[in-house]
Amino acid sequence: MEMRKIFHPLTEIPKRQASPPVATVNPQKDEGSFGERKTVSKQSQAANKAWGGVFEEAADPRMEKFSESISFDRRLYRQDIRGSQAHAKMLAKVGVLTADEAKAICDGLDGILADIEAGNFEYSIKLEDIHMHVEKELINRIGDTGRKLHTGRSRNDQVSTDFRLWVRDAIDKMDSLLKNLQKAFIGRCDEDFDCILPGFTHTQRAQPVLAPHYWLCYVEKFARDRERLADCRKRTNTLSLGAAALAGTSIPIDRFETARLLEFERVAANSLDVSSDRDFALEFTFCLAVIAEHLSTWAEEWILWSTCEFNFIKLPQKFCTGSSIMPQKVNPDLLELIRGKTARVIGDLQTLMVLVKGLLLAYNRDLQEDKTPVFDAFDTVSASLDLAADMVRDAKLNREAINERLEKGYLDATTFMEFLIKRGIPQRTAHGMVGRLVRSAMNRGIPLAELPLQEFQAEDPSIDDSVYEILGVRKAIDAFQSYGSTAANQVRYQIDTWKKNIEF
Amino acid sequence: MEMRKIFHPLTEIPKRQASPPVATVNPQKDEGSFGERKTVSKQSQAANKAWGGVFEEAADPRMEKFSESISFDRRLYRQDIRGSQAHAKMLAKVGVLTADEAKAICDGLDGILADIEAGNFEYSIKLEDIHMHVEKELINRIGDTGRKLHTGRSRNDQVSTDFRLWVRDAIDKMDSLLKNLQKAFIGRCDEDFDCILPGFTHTQRAQPVLAPHYWLCYVEKFARDRERLADCRKRTNTLSLGAAALAGTSIPIDRFETARLLEFERVAANSLDVSSDRDFALEFTFCLAVIAEHLSTWAEEWILWSTCEFNFIKLPQKFCTGSSIMPQKVNPDLLELIRGKTARVIGDLQTLMVLVKGLLLAYNRDLQEDKTPVFDAFDTVSASLDLAADMVRDAKLNREAINERLEKGYLDATTFMEFLIKRGIPQRTAHGMVGRLVRSAMNRGIPLAELPLQEFQAEDPSIDDSVYEILGVRKAIDAFQSYGSTAANQVRYQIDTWKKNIEF
Amino acid sequence: MEMRKIFHPLTEIPKRQASPPVATVNPQKDEGSFGERKTVSKQSQAANKAWGGVFEEAADPRMEKFSESISFDRRLYRQDIRGSQAHAKMLAKVGVLTADEAKAICDGLDGILADIEAGNFEYSIKLEDIHMHVEKELINRIGDTGRKLHTGRSRNDQVSTDFRLWVRDAIDKMDSLLKNLQKAFIGRCDEDFDCILPGFTHTQRAQPVLAPHYWLCYVEKFARDRERLADCRKRTNTLSLGAAALAGTSIPIDRFETARLLEFERVAANSLDVSSDRDFALEFTFCLAVIAEHLSTWAEEWILWSTCEFNFIKLPQKFCTGSSIMPQKVNPDLLELIRGKTARVIGDLQTLMVLVKGLLLAYNRDLQEDKTPVFDAFDTVSASLDLAADMVRDAKLNREAINERLEKGYLDATTFMEFLIKRGIPQRTAHGMVGRLVRSAMNRGIPLAELPLQEFQAEDPSIDDSVYEILGVRKAIDAFQSYGSTAANQVRYQIDTWKKNIEF
Amino acid sequence: MEMRKIFHPLTEIPKRQASPPVATVNPQKDEGSFGERKTVSKQSQAANKAWGGVFEEAADPRMEKFSESISFDRRLYRQDIRGSQAHAKMLAKVGVLTADEAKAICDGLDGILADIEAGNFEYSIKLEDIHMHVEKELINRIGDTGRKLHTGRSRNDQVSTDFRLWVRDAIDKMDSLLKNLQKAFIGRCDEDFDCILPGFTHTQRAQPVLAPHYWLCYVEKFARDRERLADCRKRTNTLSLGAAALAGTSIPIDRFETARLLEFERVAANSLDVSSDRDFALEFTFCLAVIAEHLSTWAEEWILWSTCEFNFIKLPQKFCTGSSIMPQKVNPDLLELIRGKTARVIGDLQTLMVLVKGLLLAYNRDLQEDKTPVFDAFDTVSASLDLAADMVRDAKLNREAINERLEKGYLDATTFMEFLIKRGIPQRTAHGMVGRLVRSAMNRGIPLAELPLQEFQAEDPSIDDSVYEILGVRKAIDAFQSYGSTAANQVRYQIDTWKKNIEF
Repeated sequence: MEMRKIFHPLTEIPKRQASPPVATVNPQKDEGSFGERKTVSKQSQAANKAWGGVFEEAADPRMEKFSESISFDRRLYRQDIRGSQAHAKMLAKVGVLTADEAKAICDGLDGILADIEAGNFEYSIKLEDIHMHVEKELINRIGDTGRKLHTGRSRNDQVSTDFRLWVRDAIDKMDSLLKNLQKAFIGRCDEDFDCILPGFTHTQRAQPVLAPHYWLCYVEKFARDRERLADCRKRTNTLSLGAAALAGTSIPIDRFETARLLEFERVAANSLDVSSDRDFALEFTFCLAVIAEHLSTWAEEWILWSTCEFNFIKLPQKFCTGSSIMPQKVNPDLLELIRGKTARVIGDLQTLMVLVKGLLLAYNRDLQEDKTPVFDAFDTVSASLDLAADMVRDAKLNREAINERLEKGYLDATTFMEFLIKRGIPQRTAHGMVGRLVRSAMNRGIPLAELPLQEFQAEDPSIDDSVYEILGVRKAIDAFQSYGSTAANQVRYQIDTWKKNIEF
Repeated sequence: MEMRKIFHPLTEIPKRQASPPVATVNPQKDEGSFGERKTVSKQSQAANKAWGGVFEEAADPRMEKFSESISFDRRLYRQDIRGSQAHAKMLAKVGVLTADEAKAICDGLDGILADIEAGNFEYSIKLEDIHMHVEKELINRIGDTGRKLHTGRSRNDQVSTDFRLWVRDAIDKMDSLLKNLQKAFIGRCDEDFDCILPGFTHTQRAQPVLAPHYWLCYVEKFARDRERLADCRKRTNTLSLGAAALAGTSIPIDRFETARLLEFERVAANSLDVSSDRDFALEFTFCLAVIAEHLSTWAEEWILWSTCEFNFIKLPQKFCTGSSIMPQKVNPDLLELIRGKTARVIGDLQTLMVLVKGLLLAYNRDLQEDKTPVFDAFDTVSASLDLAADMVRDAKLNREAINERLEKGYLDATTFMEFLIKRGIPQRTAHGMVGRLVRSAMNRGIPLAELPLQEFQAEDPSIDDSVYEILGVRKAIDAFQSYGSTAANQVRYQIDTWKKNIEF
Repeated sequence: MEMRKIFHPLTEIPKRQASPPVATVNPQKDEGSFGERKTVSKQSQAANKAWGGVFEEAADPRMEKFSESISFDRRLYRQDIRGSQAHAKMLAKVGVLTADEAKAICDGLDGILADIEAGNFEYSIKLEDIHMHVEKELINRIGDTGRKLHTGRSRNDQVSTDFRLWVRDAIDKMDSLLKNLQKAFIGRCDEDFDCILPGFTHTQRAQPVLAPHYWLCYVEKFARDRERLADCRKRTNTLSLGAAALAGTSIPIDRFETARLLEFERVAANSLDVSSDRDFALEFTFCLAVIAEHLSTWAEEWILWSTCEFNFIKLPQKFCTGSSIMPQKVNPDLLELIRGKTARVIGDLQTLMVLVKGLLLAYNRDLQEDKTPVFDAFDTVSASLDLAADMVRDAKLNREAINERLEKGYLDATTFMEFLIKRGIPQRTAHGMVGRLVRSAMNRGIPLAELPLQEFQAEDPSIDDSVYEILGVRKAIDAFQSYGSTAANQVRYQIDTWKKNIEF
Repeated sequence: MEMRKIFHPLTEIPKRQASPPVATVNPQKDEGSFGERKTVSKQSQAANKAWGGVFEEAADPRMEKFSESISFDRRLYRQDIRGSQAHAKMLAKVGVLTADEAKAICDGLDGILADIEAGNFEYSIKLEDIHMHVEKELINRIGDTGRKLHTGRSRNDQVSTDFRLWVRDAIDKMDSLLKNLQKAFIGRCDEDFDCILPGFTHTQRAQPVLAPHYWLCYVEKFARDRERLADCRKRTNTLSLGAAALAGTSIPIDRFETARLLEFERVAANSLDVSSDRDFALEFTFCLAVIAEHLSTWAEEWILWSTCEFNFIKLPQKFCTGSSIMPQKVNPDLLELIRGKTARVIGDLQTLMVLVKGLLLAYNRDLQEDKTPVFDAFDTVSASLDLAADMVRDAKLNREAINERLEKGYLDATTFMEFLIKRGIPQRTAHGMVGRLVRSAMNRGIPLAELPLQEFQAEDPSIDDSVYEILGVRKAIDAFQSYGSTAANQVRYQIDTWKKNIEF
């Protein structure tokens, strides 16, 4: 709230009373002129292109193929039509279109939408992009009134609007996929509550950890992702339409009305900025890349856990594939692909970062390349999240194999050191003592709990038999106390709190 | 608020009443044991390393050189000391240290801080990192009590805490540099208010734009950057300390107290997550990269504007350099370097993105490589912003040269089309008419305003002499109406609003 | 030659005499066994998958969709079939297949190839990849003999072979596209020979340059690209087949024979390496990215040159597009897209670099993600090169506009300085003199040639009227002498040499 | 040879006879003028800057700090001096300097070199870069003659020359470090010859592999790196000097002489190209990045192998470090850092790729940012290679632990399938049979060799007792035959060939 005041004094949508200086149509001056004259265009068989007049030479067919965007921006059809309908309604509200014209346009667009969704719509690279496809078809269907739709707007602000609407939807879908994955992790916490796993640092066994502590770690990471997306959504949810090409328009449009119709929370304040800005695409793709990073860590971990050597987890075979030559193989392909596809999302982010570097104000055609990486990153991360949730739900911990080796790796050494600290030995001193004891146990291939008492006493004569009461991995788990630690009561509290805060 | 409930049910710092289940020291059970016994370490001449006990072989000197971080993490000395002081105070509060011990530690650290700032501190790669340097020196100064400081913490959570404190400070500095640059742009709006510039799309002249409309475009971009940083700050400002190595600790620490002492807004909820998480570094560097992108656009624009060909702006010579061979050269080196250094910041972001991909839980030594790119990106963007503000303040628009060619490029064509639209001609039809008229004018090398009336009438017989009243670039500017457009009243309103909302 | 000895002592294809220790079929022991027994498989209605036996659970349909590669690796169909035919012939040569079996396989594959090229082939994600599609169809057509094709190979070495064959072809196409673009530049040198352009450093006018000197600059850059590709081709052109999954095979195959049949120059020496190696894909994509960089420089330059402000060049309208709102616009979209798509190729390279980082030996499923970025980079750069050549051929220099402003920017200052040096004035001293003279001329807005003699003499009393004989841009061009300079005889020599060395 | 003809008809250094049209000094015309007149500069207390004359305002001190490069390009001092000495000698040869002047310059530079190497040289950001430092100091030492050194060159071609010389040296160092690492791998092949390791695909046990087969896999990868570097060296080893600023010079220099003196193999043919070209830096950094990728795979592998779970290898403790809190930890930090630093090198490559995108001809100040990433990538990869070699030499395979679990994972399944194929069963059919047998064995937790004969016969009645002679991992190894496989005779042949081809 405060924040928006500070950063964007100009983007608030007014609550009807004290409006910013938006031009309104002067009914005296302009009455009768808008939308009434029925000039029949010299070009009633208008050229396909939106921009033929000044040109003396037709586009090279290879150029049409090279520069088309319809093959990917057709994905924006729903947003394009919704944006055009809001634009038409606004034009009617300010008197630039008659109510009938607006209705004809909106109905025409509804028909086009229905046909596109039914698969009855033909695309052609001759018509460049989704905007021209829809507009041309509208003119085909409703005639000259269709030619009025593009009043007071440009494809520069139109595509920005379409894309923002699409990203807004995509953020919402992403949030729901993330929540679904969080629920998959939370959902197995109770069942796995009693399973102790080695925790690792440097890929080396470090301290014991409850299995649900692992699961909640990922819940935390995805929670941050969701928060980041929500922040990105605020900035994405800003109206571009009305900036026209780059400088605004002399048509007396009402951008606040358009914003209300399209449920935007803010109105972009500077037309040059709108025309050149792709921050929202960068930010969304960054958010996706971080989600992919989190997934890659999880995938790497479970790939390792499912090896013959670790043998911590059994993956459902429905998410594995085999080998064409090695008959025994059951490979964790889903996890490998999720990990591998992270590279793709990072590459997509890089494409966008490179794309906008050093681009002059305002719109440049380079920006057409903004959509492919965003779509690709979204599709990749969506599919990964969706399958990850099922994998998380269905994998089984190999408790027996885990328990068998739980005393390996001296997972209790730190708790033992902290036991010494609690007896008054400075941490650094206690660290040295335990280190030497571990070395001695290691050389003999035994756990700390099997060292004879005199070895302990050689380090600190005051140690007595009670030391054996705190050694061993299960006892180490019991000893944890700190907030956020793997102590059973901590983990239990966190599971319960998450359950209460995420609807199931 | 709502949002934090949803995303992070576990990170709120309680308002003292209903605390989460944090362990507290049981005075009966533990009384007397903490901090009292004065065991003199067997290793009072302790090895330099924090971890000698288990090792049977010394580190290879080249390994020390390869793995040291003191050459760059010394930059965290202030944060490290502040974090350690808060940790010691908290340890005293919960009874793990006596008040005297905590005081000795805090005073000792104050002395070390003073010496570091005075340049009286020796660094050595033998001591690996800033943490070991400070701790070792503390032990040198205050003896065995210093050995107690590292109780209940690990370097894993310590470095995360230090780094978060540093990034938090860096965000605040960045915000102030951005505001400073915004003010430089806003500060020249009044003076340049009457200057009309060509606006460009596709690097081609498009429509006329008031100079301050350009300046406010950048103010908008940097406003988004500030908002993004503020969002990043929320997530950065989270306490890591207390996660210890990866699993928490059996020492009964109070992490909420530490958070209060260090002014963190949240407490990280999962120790595995803390130990592995570098999201805040990624996000901050992403924010820096987007700032750099914005700067690169501005730099590219002004490099072009300062060419002999554009000749829109005169850059202050104090930010230019010359050539060793071409005596006449006055080059826009500052702008070129700002543009070029964008590559560096994008590269830094990529380094971080690649670094964390597929890393297993929890801490891995790879993460030591997280600081160099963050520092580099911050230093690069800070220096760029700082100099950019002065460049913006001191450059002069070449009004005469600008005005001389203002009628080139048919900047009034769109307004003329909108004039026809207002007379009832559908947009697409009007577009075609104007396109043909421009082509005709272009072929003769004259502006639209010099076309004879009959040419206009050939397109639309109803056009009369009044058409000449709306042609020409200045009249085009006057015609704009929409919110956020380059209309004079719009730009004036925006300048005034910014001035009111940014303190000068 | 020498080099290959040093780096790869093991990859040479022997000239039949002294072969490396390749196993051969022992006719006594194995005679009769290969390819004779006509066991009818229990699974004559074999599962679609290549690997069903060990599995107890079918693949999840979403998993099939997520993990399929047929949507993009179908592009390798020709290489896959060619590779399989060579494999079958080799198997016959060593006696693993009978001649009839090999013929049946090769004929079957020819039929499949014809059907694919005729569009009569159905793809299904159930069959995963192009290898399974072809093999399954072969079995459908020729029965049990088809089940023998996969003997002694794995999809791991098969896909590597297919991909290498594809990249080898792609390199050859790329080379030819580059040569075509070089010819476009060379082809306009004669016509533009007399046109002097300003050369720029720091985007500021620097020294005069003949137009063909510009064109040859790009010819040089693309020459390096071609050489880099040729080097990459050597390494790509290495046989993978025969490495099988990762360890080789117990089937007595003859990899040198396969190499000969597929025209590979080398045989990969280590099976683990083959299975994990994607260096050739990285290197090819790097080469493509550098080509894209070169194109981006050219595109940026011509975008600028075609502005109203520079006005150096007129682009063919067939490669431009217009605006939906601004009727006068003729935008250099082709150039902008070529520049923008550079980002995409750089992103593709980054995807590959990230993909292979830290991957264990040998094959991992992550590697499936290797093809999309290579295909995308190749398609992007091919299309850009193809159109660039036409753009280069058809654009026209605006000589009049260029000449009009040729004396701006003191392009003769350096030559004037060198004139002073030739009179014995040390370079640094002469530089200072000319700098002051330029400043004086600049302040008055005149070229050096219009400064009065006494100003020159104030710097050096020995200067006389003859100074005016060497001032001015045309005279500056005449003065150049060094090899590779823009001197007319130098440029002429280079044009002629290129013409002789590149067939037209 | 052929290749160079095709790609670079203009870069060959002539063998003295038929020279390209290089200008020579006309003795009649110029005699006496060069180097004779002893004008004392008006600015004998010359400004520090190389370019003061045209400037009316001094540089801002922050600008000096922002734009300096001396802090990193001082690393080029040796190359800068060598280049200047060659330049001076060439100037003397063509008569632009007298022999005495050239000698004075060369001697002066020798003195400066000696002082720099002895640490007796002061750097200042006021002097911008290494070129100005050396030249200024030369003038200080030898007076006006020093002012003649910069004749016929610019810092643009000078820095390119220096950088190429540096990269050429760096390539040679890199080659030697790679060879050293290859030797470390080859050096342990004999000792480890009898050790069988599981080979992995998808991180799952796949087929057995001899330990030296692993080692030779890395030798292959680094061999490709060396070959790539050698190719890069050819292109790097090209003379830039003489291109001057961007257009060449009117001073009659002899670039072929300079090339000979500096041992360049080629002379760059187009001055605009020289001034803008950084391909060699991109290519070298790409080569470094691929080396880093290879190291990252090895590091990842050995990190895994050194876990408690895999337990294949024991790393020397001198390359490990411990934990500040967990006394038992011995972490593979060297390997983790090598893996992590890969990110840095990939980031460096990206920085360069982004830097040059869309840069206009010719030199732009952005290019100053080219050196930091190249230096950083080189330093990172050098240090990694150096330490990797020692790690490779000193690590020990844990044979006992490896052997204990060798029969896990059905490593013999593929060989068993190939046994069936050799008996005439089609591969696809045999694959299914073995898959079912493995599933049966897996469900009972036994190796294939422990399945009863009737199970085998249920799949194929003709199988008899002899099947047990080919089952088991050691027998699987014995069965391999193909070139490049892990068969003992293959691996032995490869070890021997490498040993003969790499000097020890």
